[in-house]
Amino acid sequence: MCLHMRIAMVAPLEIRVPPVAYGGIELVVSMLTEELVRRGHDVTLFASGDSVTKAKLVSVVSEFFRKSERSSSALSLLNMVSCLEKADYFDIIHNHTSVEGFATAGLVKTPMLTTFHGGLAGDLRILFNHYKGWYNTISQSALSLLPPKEHFAGVIYNAINCSEYPFNDGNRGEYLLFFSRFSPDKGPHLAIQVARRLNIPLILAGNLHPVEHEYFKTQVLPYVDGKMVKYEGEVDDTRKKELMANAKCLLAPITWPEPFGLFMIEAMACGTPVIAYNRGAAPELVQHEETGYLVKSLDAMVDSVKKIERIDPWKCRQRVLRNFDVPVLADNYLKAYEHILSETCATELELLTAQ
Amino acid sequence: MCLHMRIAMVAPLEIRVPPVAYGGIELVVSMLTEELVRRGHDVTLFASGDSVTKAKLVSVVSEFFRKSERSSSALSLLNMVSCLEKADYFDIIHNHTSVEGFATAGLVKTPMLTTFHGGLAGDLRILFNHYKGWYNTISQSALSLLPPKEHFAGVIYNAINCSEYPFNDGNRGEYLLFFSRFSPDKGPHLAIQVARRLNIPLILAGNLHPVEHEYFKTQVLPYVDGKMVKYEGEVDDTRKKELMANAKCLLAPITWPEPFGLFMIEAMACGTPVIAYNRGAAPELVQHEETGYLVKSLDAMVDSVKKIERIDPWKCRQRVLRNFDVPVLADNYLKAYEHILSETCATELELLTAQ
Repeated sequence: MCLHMRIAMVAPLEIRVPPVAYGGIELVVSMLTEELVRRGHDVTLFASGDSVTKAKLVSVVSEFFRKSERSSSALSLLNMVSCLEKADYFDIIHNHTSVEGFATAGLVKTPMLTTFHGGLAGDLRILFNHYKGWYNTISQSALSLLPPKEHFAGVIYNAINCSEYPFNDGNRGEYLLFFSRFSPDKGPHLAIQVARRLNIPLILAGNLHPVEHEYFKTQVLPYVDGKMVKYEGEVDDTRKKELMANAKCLLAPITWPEPFGLFMIEAMACGTPVIAYNRGAAPELVQHEETGYLVKSLDAMVDSVKKIERIDPWKCRQRVLRNFDVPVLADNYLKAYEHILSETCATELELLTAQ
Repeated sequence: MCLHMRIAMVAPLEIRVPPVAYGGIELVVSMLTEELVRRGHDVTLFASGDSVTKAKLVSVVSEFFRKSERSSSALSLLNMVSCLEKADYFDIIHNHTSVEGFATAGLVKTPMLTTFHGGLAGDLRILFNHYKGWYNTISQSALSLLPPKEHFAGVIYNAINCSEYPFNDGNRGEYLLFFSRFSPDKGPHLAIQVARRLNIPLILAGNLHPVEHEYFKTQVLPYVDGKMVKYEGEVDDTRKKELMANAKCLLAPITWPEPFGLFMIEAMACGTPVIAYNRGAAPELVQHEETGYLVKSLDAMVDSVKKIERIDPWKCRQRVLRNFDVPVLADNYLKAYEHILSETCATELELLTAQ
């Protein structure tokens, strides 16, 4: 096993690495990249030119797409190709895009690992079927939604830099927190109902995508009164941690199979319990009655808030430290890289022997 | 020089090869492919599954996009990749797409020739700059719009199967013909003005893209009266040739730098003179005062119709037979392939010698 690996890290171009505000994929790519560099690996990051990294940075665009308001599949492909053209240099290519890697992995000898950050929709299914590389998912739940396919490298959970989150073992604020994207998937309208039934203030924070304007205007905004339901919108990192560390608990009434849910482990890192709908990856993140509650109904979510004092903040943080902290993330990906390399060597050896 | 080459022909997936009705690129790809097969070359066509060819057909989709109302850059990429994964088998890859080939040519050793069927817009410029293969244009005009770049394989004009067009050396009908897409670029509104000034009937035939509905409704339709200005819309191949062979002349009041203009050589093949605005490739197709007229104004187009009897139908057809017939097309592309292969060998030899 080589002590120092040559790793290509291919990121999407939508958001810079690390993201300025929201951007879960880019945040994970950044943390993994920096941790691998810190451990002495030779990492090249293929990302937008305004990315900030201690790895070597290779960019086909100077600014990330969301900033320049473009969205180009052609340039995303070029980002991948700029890596593939140097493939011989790398021991492994770690791909965080979808189409670009699925289509092209068979064109180079260097093995590719694709981390499945999203699901399979439409044409992506055909591309995945064609894919000649390895893949991992970020939860068992995400895996269960994929068709079976060889070269599965395991479930590797996302992570955060736990040490950067303030731990609150003392008094918590008398407010509930919703912290996510404002979309029906994430259920802010349900969080509002829970708060109103309990007569406990709710703070809503998160980003809003233009396609969700109508939902936001009709299902969320009418209930915002600045007192019982307070809307803070997109907040910066400092305010995020403040809100998370002081909340009575985080409400995650997700209505879709959330493949991970970074916001849940962020809250737990602060010692803040999480009450989540038992969907998607929630049961893999939140330990029922240990770090919060997993519920199946609005009534159960209301009841869980009433017994939230039973949850030990330290157990919340400990769960993150043990399972979802960056060193664990890096360990797991390095193990996956090593597994893939040894499997690739074994296959090559078989082919040689067969000749 | 190998007598029989192994050629990969990569077509777009928007329309099947050959097209059912309109589709200039797919028509040229089809004619070239069949002619190369007829000459004994080993041709593999990468196109939609409903394509009809004597070459080997490889398809990643069963139906062409326009039929299934989809448009997937992911599947277009997969179409190219399915060729690249077998690249070692081929002497040359002839690419008729843009992004897909520009991005990926550097990933295989087999040389690629891209035929520039369109222009360079937006991100395509960045992709073209990155492109590691050869390219040709379909006119000098199209070439003049590109930035200078090495590995230019020459201008190779588009072609038609001249023998399939009826030659009319006798009496022509008393109508002017517009036969193209209904868009401001193609100038049907100008053809209408010419006809009205001359009081000669005009037949309008061609396809209409949804984005041009407003233009068509306001600039074309109000003048259609079924007598002086008759609208036939999309017509089949038989009717097309009938209309072209019997027209007094074809009007091509193009307002943009048309990179080629198959409809002009189709008319000339029938012995029908063409009066075109002197833009784009028009002066490379139409010989002024020999096969029609090149004009700079509406007045001049009107005057040219008055002296159209001076044009000899046989000269029109002869021009197509000599320059724009399929055997010429195949000769020219084979010459280009051979040039590229010998240059590629020379470069490899240089690299070997330098070692």
